[in-house]
Amino acid sequence: MADNTTSSLPVNVGVILFPGFQALDVFGPLDALNILSRSYPLNLSLISSLSTLDPVSTQPPASVNAIVGAPTANSHFAQSLVPTHTIHTPPPTLDVLLIPGGLGTRAPDLEPLIAYIARAAQSTKHVLTVCTGSWLAARAGVLDGKRATSNKRSWAGREGLGNGTEWVAHARWVQDGDTWTSSGVSAGIDMLLAWMESVFGAGVAEEVANGMEYERHTDPSWDPFADLYGL
Amino acid sequence: MADNTTSSLPVNVGVILFPGFQALDVFGPLDALNILSRSYPLNLSLISSLSTLDPVSTQPPASVNAIVGAPTANSHFAQSLVPTHTIHTPPPTLDVLLIPGGLGTRAPDLEPLIAYIARAAQSTKHVLTVCTGSWLAARAGVLDGKRATSNKRSWAGREGLGNGTEWVAHARWVQDGDTWTSSGVSAGIDMLLAWMESVFGAGVAEEVANGMEYERHTDPSWDPFADLYGL
Repeated sequence: MADNTTSSLPVNVGVILFPGFQALDVFGPLDALNILSRSYPLNLSLISSLSTLDPVSTQPPASVNAIVGAPTANSHFAQSLVPTHTIHTPPPTLDVLLIPGGLGTRAPDLEPLIAYIARAAQSTKHVLTVCTGSWLAARAGVLDGKRATSNKRSWAGREGLGNGTEWVAHARWVQDGDTWTSSGVSAGIDMLLAWMESVFGAGVAEEVANGMEYERHTDPSWDPFADLYGL
Repeated sequence: MADNTTSSLPVNVGVILFPGFQALDVFGPLDALNILSRSYPLNLSLISSLSTLDPVSTQPPASVNAIVGAPTANSHFAQSLVPTHTIHTPPPTLDVLLIPGGLGTRAPDLEPLIAYIARAAQSTKHVLTVCTGSWLAARAGVLDGKRATSNKRSWAGREGLGNGTEWVAHARWVQDGDTWTSSGVSAGIDMLLAWMESVFGAGVAEEVANGMEYERHTDPSWDPFADLYGL
């Protein structure tokens, strides 16, 4: 992978974290970017929705379980990721903002996070969402007048979000200019690699995908899950 | 997903962490288990190779870069995960041990980790490795006399590891009894879901995969990457 970077390539990547984020929404795209970062200069900010730099857990808060239903099993099973910033002390400039989904997107207290996404998106060229991360982007106005997609099992949740957003049910991901939204969870890997191809070139994306031993879906309209969930 | 658990199902899952672990090796399988843990009782231990409970970074240590070659870009791009245990203060009992790979498996100072894996595997029924995690398992004697696979781009690295191990080049994953080894990175998702099917049932694995909007590879001999890398 040649290091033929130019100043027009994105460098500063921010990823939103909140309690109850979906692990693969974050780490599918980040695994690809981790590999890319060895040959292209990239800086990562992990931006917590909370007011401290405490680790952020994949465990949904109790307020979310009250909405989606409590787990039927008594498990102790979560991972906590260390943020580098918070939405109250954010990084100064971003070229890419990645917004994951997860059960935590149903939390009742996300207004400060929505406000940060709205502010950050104004100065960030590339905005990418995975799964129900598009709900947050839509609430922040980022998807106003744009085509977008979201998680298919929870498709109904995007209803009423976005102002003039055209929600595309049958899509692995949707690109609208520099705004990219993917379907659920693993779809974020395909979207990120398609974005990487458009920005860094097809050879770079292919080499990263091969390093991940990942068979990409390269057709954005491929979506058996829209059919599965009757959309 | 019905909660028809019985006492024979595995509950206590341990995942090995070390500096320079591959993010998707850990979080592909864990995303599936995170979903499962809402309906089946599961407990997670994240076991650091270090001597403290400091967060463990995906960033390979300098000692590894000296072996595999330094990055050609000056990036600041890594994620740090909070462990729950260390190999020196490990969890008492495990039913499942998952060993990820990554550049960190090339570190010169892994003997304490190898020794822990050897000890833990003796009392752990299910041992699963992803990518070059099989190198660590082989060094610990876990793959002696067994069939196994590993990362394909770095296939040569398994040479001489394991005592009588039959290394299978053309495999998405290999099952040998309760020992499961996968090919590189994203192959861990397919292996984990195949393991989940064998232990929890096909319907459970299918529902988890559908929740991840993940199209599984269900044929363990599917492996275009073995061909790609001329194996």
